[in-house]
Amino acid sequence: MYDGSLTSLAEVRAALAALPGPDGLAIAGAAARNGQLTKPPGALGRLEDLAQWYAGWRGDARPVIAAPQVIVFAGNHGVAARGVSAFPPEVTVQMVANFRAGGAAINQLARCFGARMDVRALELERPTADFTKGVAMDEGDFVTALRVGWEAVDRATDLLVVGEMGIGNTTAAAAVAAALFGGGAAVWTGAGTGVQGAALAAKIAVVEAGVARHGGSGDPLAVLAALGGREMAAMAGAVLRARTLRIPVILDGFICCAAVAPLAVAAPGALDHCVAGHLSGEGAHGALLERLGKAPLLNLGLRLGEGSGAALAIGVLLGAVACHSGMATFAEAGVAAGRALPRPGGG
Amino acid sequence: MYDGSLTSLAEVRAALAALPGPDGLAIAGAAARNGQLTKPPGALGRLEDLAQWYAGWRGDARPVIAAPQVIVFAGNHGVAARGVSAFPPEVTVQMVANFRAGGAAINQLARCFGARMDVRALELERPTADFTKGVAMDEGDFVTALRVGWEAVDRATDLLVVGEMGIGNTTAAAAVAAALFGGGAAVWTGAGTGVQGAALAAKIAVVEAGVARHGGSGDPLAVLAALGGREMAAMAGAVLRARTLRIPVILDGFICCAAVAPLAVAAPGALDHCVAGHLSGEGAHGALLERLGKAPLLNLGLRLGEGSGAALAIGVLLGAVACHSGMATFAEAGVAAGRALPRPGGG
Repeated sequence: MYDGSLTSLAEVRAALAALPGPDGLAIAGAAARNGQLTKPPGALGRLEDLAQWYAGWRGDARPVIAAPQVIVFAGNHGVAARGVSAFPPEVTVQMVANFRAGGAAINQLARCFGARMDVRALELERPTADFTKGVAMDEGDFVTALRVGWEAVDRATDLLVVGEMGIGNTTAAAAVAAALFGGGAAVWTGAGTGVQGAALAAKIAVVEAGVARHGGSGDPLAVLAALGGREMAAMAGAVLRARTLRIPVILDGFICCAAVAPLAVAAPGALDHCVAGHLSGEGAHGALLERLGKAPLLNLGLRLGEGSGAALAIGVLLGAVACHSGMATFAEAGVAAGRALPRPGGG
Repeated sequence: MYDGSLTSLAEVRAALAALPGPDGLAIAGAAARNGQLTKPPGALGRLEDLAQWYAGWRGDARPVIAAPQVIVFAGNHGVAARGVSAFPPEVTVQMVANFRAGGAAINQLARCFGARMDVRALELERPTADFTKGVAMDEGDFVTALRVGWEAVDRATDLLVVGEMGIGNTTAAAAVAAALFGGGAAVWTGAGTGVQGAALAAKIAVVEAGVARHGGSGDPLAVLAALGGREMAAMAGAVLRARTLRIPVILDGFICCAAVAPLAVAAPGALDHCVAGHLSGEGAHGALLERLGKAPLLNLGLRLGEGSGAALAIGVLLGAVACHSGMATFAEAGVAAGRALPRPGGG
């Protein structure tokens, strides 16, 4: 495990080369416990898998979730000047104030599920460069942004959600996804805050130009630096930090998944400590989740960002772990287990 | 609105004939508020619909959820003697003790989402009659069971989940669904706690025999009395009571939906105050939800009963209402709204 600082791209690569895995003993212990709980085998469906996955990463066969953390990163994008969003860039600053005042959706959801909420605004007065003209971030800017994410994760956190705000960032995310996975700009470019018709065609052209310019790099981190945004780099830094601390992560929608996808491309398995919180209403999110091999927990048409879909899924994780760690076993409750049928199930 | 007692089938019919609707002014107020919140229109997806639906039933354009209630009803079934379950009937009594001791899945989920939890065991020592030989419940038994549910709902409750425990009750639920909606016993009969092969064929034959004997009744309440169980009648009574008090309900899986389906068949719209909490892993639940016109909030493969899937969905309702009532408006937060595009969406 890499537990140093994050002050250079070499250190990012060092962290990626030394990713810790889950605790096999804790997984085995959790699986054994799961088989003794007062329910037919498998009757809690995906909650059972989630609890055992969580147990493995926490190294505890009977874990509790006591300290979830939501971090919202905000950044401004050079490409926003090209009319790719229905909202003006000033909204990023205004929404950061709203996050700090507790008025946004993510504030309500974090509070609802007992999560601490942090906000990190990344040089909003200094947007990234327009990626159709050069790299969005040079190496220094990129590493600085990654480090903001890395350092924002509290060591005491036991479940992490990373969200974002950044007018123009569905464009950046589409460009990163297209550069990493191919298929063409149109496949990865969606409505975002609500562009359509000619505005959508223009947005696709911007993505296409970015991919044409920077997509040839075989280095997924270089792709994120060239086409992403500061808030996206920070999300990647936070998710990487969570891995080194074995903190499970709930991924949010399209932008979040595009931000962390370079980690998975650079180091297969780098997102094994992450679960997909939801399927976003933003068009290409499903395709991106497929590339990452993640099945979403929720599918309620959210397309807000901020970490909102992932924060809603904290409730699912809380329920899964509460059942796993709080339920009585057949022996404790004096309940007769099922007859010796091949694989009993519920009711 | 019917606010009397429930001591005869005539009173049940009186309640069904006087169902209150939602508050149109509260819905309009909630819709207006929703349009002013600091997010692109529609970006919270189904959470927005849920909040407005909840507001309508509570008669409050900016509601809070402060007192959710989970009630688990338990009953024993004459048909259990015919080997339709992988578990022996004693398990119903043992699980009731487990509910009371706080050791079941539903206890953990109720606690997780701040819900009060009640347990009502309905004459477990006196199973319903085997419906292949006669009616499961005579009118007196049926009304008594309905009343247990009716009286279990606290007036101060602002969100209700009804769950069940009853070895053999997927058989009873399949018979009720088949009698109400047709299509044949095999369509509605699933694995339950885990029967398969010859045991599943025998279970289907039991359902078939019940439907052949009692399915001809044009009265959906008579169908529930003849083929259902006491816990199912109690669930119907509780959901009817919730409607008279305008308490929104989250429906659980196959048995819960079969138990309340007779209300919807008897009085169209009788379940408008209900939302489907999840799609159960029990095979025919999806078909039943389709007949009821309900789209599930969650789909995580749960097939435990007890109200577990619905209780997990309390988290979604809490999130929806927290966002709706807690978020700042554009004016309050000083955030610029989107450009005048046809219909902006998120990011």
